[in-house]
Amino acid sequence: MARLVMKFGGTSLADVGRIAHVARHVKREAQAGHEVVVVVSAMSGATDALVRLTSEASALHDAREYDVVVATGEQVTAGLLAITLQGLGVSARSWLGWQIAIRTDGTHGGARITDIEAGDLIARFADGQVAIVAGFQGVGPDNRVTTLGRGGSDGSAVALAAAIQADRCDIYTDVDGVYTADPRIVPGAGRIARISYEEMLEMASLGARVLQTRSVEMAMVHQVRLQVRSSFEDPEAPASRYDHQPAAGTLVCDEDEIVEKQIVSGIAYSKDEAKVTLVKVADKPGVAARIFGPLARAGINVDMIVQNVSDDGKHTDLTFTVPENDLDKALDVIRSARKEIGYNDLVGSTNVVKISVIGIGMRSHAGVAATMFKALADKAINIQAITTSEIKVSVLIDSDYTELAARVLHTAYGLDSPDG
Amino acid sequence: MARLVMKFGGTSLADVGRIAHVARHVKREAQAGHEVVVVVSAMSGATDALVRLTSEASALHDAREYDVVVATGEQVTAGLLAITLQGLGVSARSWLGWQIAIRTDGTHGGARITDIEAGDLIARFADGQVAIVAGFQGVGPDNRVTTLGRGGSDGSAVALAAAIQADRCDIYTDVDGVYTADPRIVPGAGRIARISYEEMLEMASLGARVLQTRSVEMAMVHQVRLQVRSSFEDPEAPASRYDHQPAAGTLVCDEDEIVEKQIVSGIAYSKDEAKVTLVKVADKPGVAARIFGPLARAGINVDMIVQNVSDDGKHTDLTFTVPENDLDKALDVIRSARKEIGYNDLVGSTNVVKISVIGIGMRSHAGVAATMFKALADKAINIQAITTSEIKVSVLIDSDYTELAARVLHTAYGLDSPDG
Repeated sequence: MARLVMKFGGTSLADVGRIAHVARHVKREAQAGHEVVVVVSAMSGATDALVRLTSEASALHDAREYDVVVATGEQVTAGLLAITLQGLGVSARSWLGWQIAIRTDGTHGGARITDIEAGDLIARFADGQVAIVAGFQGVGPDNRVTTLGRGGSDGSAVALAAAIQADRCDIYTDVDGVYTADPRIVPGAGRIARISYEEMLEMASLGARVLQTRSVEMAMVHQVRLQVRSSFEDPEAPASRYDHQPAAGTLVCDEDEIVEKQIVSGIAYSKDEAKVTLVKVADKPGVAARIFGPLARAGINVDMIVQNVSDDGKHTDLTFTVPENDLDKALDVIRSARKEIGYNDLVGSTNVVKISVIGIGMRSHAGVAATMFKALADKAINIQAITTSEIKVSVLIDSDYTELAARVLHTAYGLDSPDG
Repeated sequence: MARLVMKFGGTSLADVGRIAHVARHVKREAQAGHEVVVVVSAMSGATDALVRLTSEASALHDAREYDVVVATGEQVTAGLLAITLQGLGVSARSWLGWQIAIRTDGTHGGARITDIEAGDLIARFADGQVAIVAGFQGVGPDNRVTTLGRGGSDGSAVALAAAIQADRCDIYTDVDGVYTADPRIVPGAGRIARISYEEMLEMASLGARVLQTRSVEMAMVHQVRLQVRSSFEDPEAPASRYDHQPAAGTLVCDEDEIVEKQIVSGIAYSKDEAKVTLVKVADKPGVAARIFGPLARAGINVDMIVQNVSDDGKHTDLTFTVPENDLDKALDVIRSARKEIGYNDLVGSTNVVKISVIGIGMRSHAGVAATMFKALADKAINIQAITTSEIKVSVLIDSDYTELAARVLHTAYGLDSPDG
């Protein structure tokens, strides 16, 4: 017997038929004797429709009223899933944010959970009742409805799992787990059975959009074991055992639970990058502050930085990357500070991609970067910038080579699956 | 300065454009300095769509979960109207049933309001804030969402008006008031400026579907003055004064407020009637009990009863009316008891209409019924049954004569408007 949180997204709850499919997943776990909390998103499309209504009502809308309107999407699916489960003979009831209560701060439209009073909910487990919780919502300090920001149902699930000390939090999505690389561009990519929180965070922040970064962070802090799995699985497959990992999906867990640590677990890429080059900047003390100070004040996040000494020894070319959306703003900031900085030319480009190899095993292994550089050089792919962390090496390359680079790196680190 | 409750139905809130129109009505009253509570229904069609989802989820659904799903309709319009009002520069906030709180009994799907804790809501009046209340919903003894049954937003409005001791409760609908007769069949019908609760109850129960019977009863008990008016009016028309009646609409109030009491205020009709005749029933003591006892036990409401002595003096023909929907059930009940009752033949008919003249003035005037009978006789309309109350005379006639009877009675009681 285990305590489980199961979270289903909007695609899995798109209509009454899909909700019935979800109910069969829940029934399987409940009948196995587990204590089950289900967290639901709104039916896919419902939240967008509600957001559109608030925008139509007034361009500048009160976030508190936005929350009142938008939170109804999850309320509907929570009620419908409870009804469906009861129809299958499973005892279930819905819980709204204010009923549990899921207390949040007062940041309407993007609230953070501060406390969950899970006592009532846990008490019902004794009767075998499944709790269906409306995700994405809570109640603020002033007793008003809050929402956790878009996609916040993952956050609800993780926070609930922590509050009730669940053995596992199963995140059901439309993919069957986390892959060693994007399967659309790397045919040999395979599903990762276990991945550490740190690796998952690097993957998530690089655009492997299976889990939200914030939810993974929360899971790491509270040591909530996350299982990413597909809601399209056969719901009548054997029920999970809390101490085992289900046959399918990816377990995101503490690195201690990962016995065989891969040097490289996966290859991720991010196209949301732009490159800015200042040509012939004076190579003198203080110039970096004059460039990056104004950018920081403008709220622009600078990632990679490369400085090349130029021929004359007095000037340098300086390149850095920013999120693609911030490129125009970054160029404006640099142009405004041209006098103080002093440069010959300013060039912006979005024709770049950041490609990363990620793995907790590389902490104890040298040569990871060398393998990367050699593999790319063999295909004549030019590296424009490099950045590293303890468990990641990232390079900036021409975006035309994204697919090729991902494939050669996947092969170079021995990740190609036998049946790929 | 007055305290007003304004209630808007689903047709008046059908889309964002209609909600903007409603907001202008509210702005008018708020800017006149009134303390305003607005009660909203769901967008027309929204509740039906939600009810359909619950039925699709499971044929036999838990009423508590039904309430969770269905109550979202009013939550959406409450938030949208608050946003729209803020966009017009009017301070406003939404209130859900549990936030106020509107306490109800635990009869999910058809709950009754037991108490309204209106203190917080009233406190906001001092800041000039308009309260937008989600109608049709409350919170039950177990802290779960309840709904008041279909059309229950009128009930929310009246109960709130009583709780905050409002000077008036304005019910905005798609008609501009209560008429002396159905204007579709009586061209001379005119709007009634003032009508007593008792008269309105008789009108409502007879199918003048402007107000629900239950809401009028509640208004009468709590002495809430109701103004029926059209949401299609020009919202920028002059604001109401609490002590005056608006130029348009019908005020439903205590009879003491009606100076010039009409003998007959209006003509109403109900087609929801069926006639049952038992031919040649033995005319002996106890037979009525044998007929109406089983009907009462079957939950069938018998209205008019007529007994005709037959030629032989030993038998009688007995006719009574029941709601049209109950006709088949009533016939079954009588057939089952044929042995105990003893009759020659049993005839059911739905080809009848009950037509009524209603007026508080008839309490002190004789001859009201005589005028009715003469007017109908003049047109050779046969009266099949008669029933009277203190403020009503009703007759059962062949439904073919509905329009003719309504028109001749309207004329006979001097109700035809000069410009009709």
